[in-house]
Amino acid sequence: FAGRVAHLGTTVFTEFSALALKHGAMNLGQGFPDFDGPEAVKEAARKAITDGVNQYAPSSGLRDLRVAIAEHGARFHGHTGIDPDTMVTVTSGATEAIFCVLLGLVDPGDEVVAFEPFYDSYDANIGFLGAKSRYVPLRPPDASHSTWWFDRDEVRAAFGPRTRVLILNTPHNPTGKVFTREELEFLGGLCAEFDVKVLSDEVYEHIVFAPARHIRAATVPSLTDRTVTVSSGGKSFSLTGWKIGWIIAPPALRDAVQRAHQFVTFATASPLQAAMAAALRLPDTYFQELGTQYLSKRERLLSGLAEAGLKAYVPEGSYFIMADIRGRGFADDVAFCRHLVTEVGVAAIPPSVFYGPEHKHLGQGMARFAFCKTEAVLDEAVRRLKEGL
Amino acid sequence: FAGRVAHLGTTVFTEFSALALKHGAMNLGQGFPDFDGPEAVKEAARKAITDGVNQYAPSSGLRDLRVAIAEHGARFHGHTGIDPDTMVTVTSGATEAIFCVLLGLVDPGDEVVAFEPFYDSYDANIGFLGAKSRYVPLRPPDASHSTWWFDRDEVRAAFGPRTRVLILNTPHNPTGKVFTREELEFLGGLCAEFDVKVLSDEVYEHIVFAPARHIRAATVPSLTDRTVTVSSGGKSFSLTGWKIGWIIAPPALRDAVQRAHQFVTFATASPLQAAMAAALRLPDTYFQELGTQYLSKRERLLSGLAEAGLKAYVPEGSYFIMADIRGRGFADDVAFCRHLVTEVGVAAIPPSVFYGPEHKHLGQGMARFAFCKTEAVLDEAVRRLKEGL
Ligand SMILES: CSCCC(=O)C(=O)O
Ligand SMILES: CSCCC(=O)C(=O)O
Repeated sequence: FAGRVAHLGTTVFTEFSALALKHGAMNLGQGFPDFDGPEAVKEAARKAITDGVNQYAPSSGLRDLRVAIAEHGARFHGHTGIDPDTMVTVTSGATEAIFCVLLGLVDPGDEVVAFEPFYDSYDANIGFLGAKSRYVPLRPPDASHSTWWFDRDEVRAAFGPRTRVLILNTPHNPTGKVFTREELEFLGGLCAEFDVKVLSDEVYEHIVFAPARHIRAATVPSLTDRTVTVSSGGKSFSLTGWKIGWIIAPPALRDAVQRAHQFVTFATASPLQAAMAAALRLPDTYFQELGTQYLSKRERLLSGLAEAGLKAYVPEGSYFIMADIRGRGFADDVAFCRHLVTEVGVAAIPPSVFYGPEHKHLGQGMARFAFCKTEAVLDEAVRRLKEGL
Repeated sequence: FAGRVAHLGTTVFTEFSALALKHGAMNLGQGFPDFDGPEAVKEAARKAITDGVNQYAPSSGLRDLRVAIAEHGARFHGHTGIDPDTMVTVTSGATEAIFCVLLGLVDPGDEVVAFEPFYDSYDANIGFLGAKSRYVPLRPPDASHSTWWFDRDEVRAAFGPRTRVLILNTPHNPTGKVFTREELEFLGGLCAEFDVKVLSDEVYEHIVFAPARHIRAATVPSLTDRTVTVSSGGKSFSLTGWKIGWIIAPPALRDAVQRAHQFVTFATASPLQAAMAAALRLPDTYFQELGTQYLSKRERLLSGLAEAGLKAYVPEGSYFIMADIRGRGFADDVAFCRHLVTEVGVAAIPPSVFYGPEHKHLGQGMARFAFCKTEAVLDEAVRRLKEGL
């Protein structure tokens, strides 16, 4: 084993999806829909296979998909001026995109700032590169904050001369926080002051609940020239298994990512790229309906959790809900989630794995439930929670 | 830019495929077939999409594909005893597999031995990890060697206390060398002596011309416990754009690779994985016909190159031919290949990019031609070569 992987275990998603299967649990753990993406997109993939779009795509991605990514950014997020030839690279999912951004931008010994809880690959990737993480905790809603929030002084204190990249994630997994324009402007100011680049992971860009609104970080003026936007089609089109992600960045930053990407996977599945171009061009109504459906699922699970006696934080975006599990006699979130999957028959994710050592205790009082599931599954999960808790 | 990508340019494949397109050249450069894979495999992919195999696969790969990989290894290469649950990980192409093997096994400062010419991602990946490369040149056939060969003392001299991994590639790109059992046994002895692991890249395993025979390195007793086999479906099924690769390794080595892979791409396109399982189960006749077709293409291009006055080395495997370009008044292989693509209308790859600085001159007298092309394309390329050279 190389030192950089010696301390790593299996991802929590792999572990709990396997446990869910083994115990016949309702799987509200790993974030994949149990329903399928739009028929038109699947048909576009079948057609691409039939039409012979089966050899290597260009390393940066099929041009038609790069054009569709640029158009989609302008249509939905006011992200104009994206040149498909110099500012876009298609990757094998957002996970590869994130890794290639860090591989292309971060030197050993550099520091990377991110918010806790974080998506687990961020921390592993920072470790792979011999860089140093500086984590700032998001705090749950309280008497004076209606949403998850961060302490500006804590963020400022995490920045220093070695800070190279700030990782943002909005809408945020697992808290469901959607960063406001004002918050992004504050962070942009800090990044300008310390000459820091931004990786903005926006894979839940289409799962946002009013009055919250998704702000693409790159459209905030102080961030435009320093931001690499990462997104993917998995969540927006309920096709998480296709693994088509992408980055959008100013040419020099895109060049750094592309140099990494060409020697990590080189290119991404051609026929699925062709279909993803069709997906990004679906009419506005598709994206509106996606939002409506997820709003109804969110309400269903929120009331179910309340009925089961769990205090939940209302997410502004993403398809996850964090619930407070303190005061139930479990040592921590892992103990709670193990009990839940084996005894109650519901899989949830223990969020302490999304914290560094210093703030792990903040995650130990919570569990993350996914609502990207059919009503039948959500209802049966709630029934089991009410009975078993 | 991070230091590790600062010196990298665009891959030679990207560069010459773009030049081929721009100049309307016959593209015998990048190694992708200009014909499509088997209809049954494409149908399996379409069916998987229709049947809803569209969400995240397990990080290690769909179990049915892992089983098919194990069965296929036993059926064609006498590679028995592959446990699909503990010895296989599916990756986003062999390129990702190679990177994850090195990420999981090689520490900064470790040394990696490989033969020159090498596939370009090896060198870039070794650099990404802060490891040190030690390259040993393969020598072209000569009066006393009927095939490409290596000097055993040179290989031994490349091994030392910091050597961690030996990268093998058989059948070898770009020379077409197929390593013999005796050569593999020699290398196995050396690896045992120095406690070195082996990455064996065997993506051309089904493109081998009698009397040469593909020996899976992992079936050589001294290599079995130390070898990670890397392969993929792209070349065997003429579907290079699907990007389904895999590794096979003893459980501890596989574990190291899996830990890396889960945080590089996490998982690989599910519907294409399902179809790849069907591909690996095609009857023996499919693989025999593939070999027959490529033999005929090899002969066609070999005689064409001879007619055009180029001395070519007969490849024992892969779909590449190396030709001697010395004595034609070109400064080097890059100058020759640029002339070829812009003036003659044929794209070939300059192999000096597959050598380290010390032996770059060995590649500067050659050009690599791919014959994974239709007869019409091969014939037109030959016509242009005869006319233009
Ligand atoms: C790559 S598996 C994780 C899926 C996901 O985004 C989540 O559950 O957080
Ligand atoms: C990943 S592009 C390179 C394709 C190939 O294997 C080659 O041309 O050598």
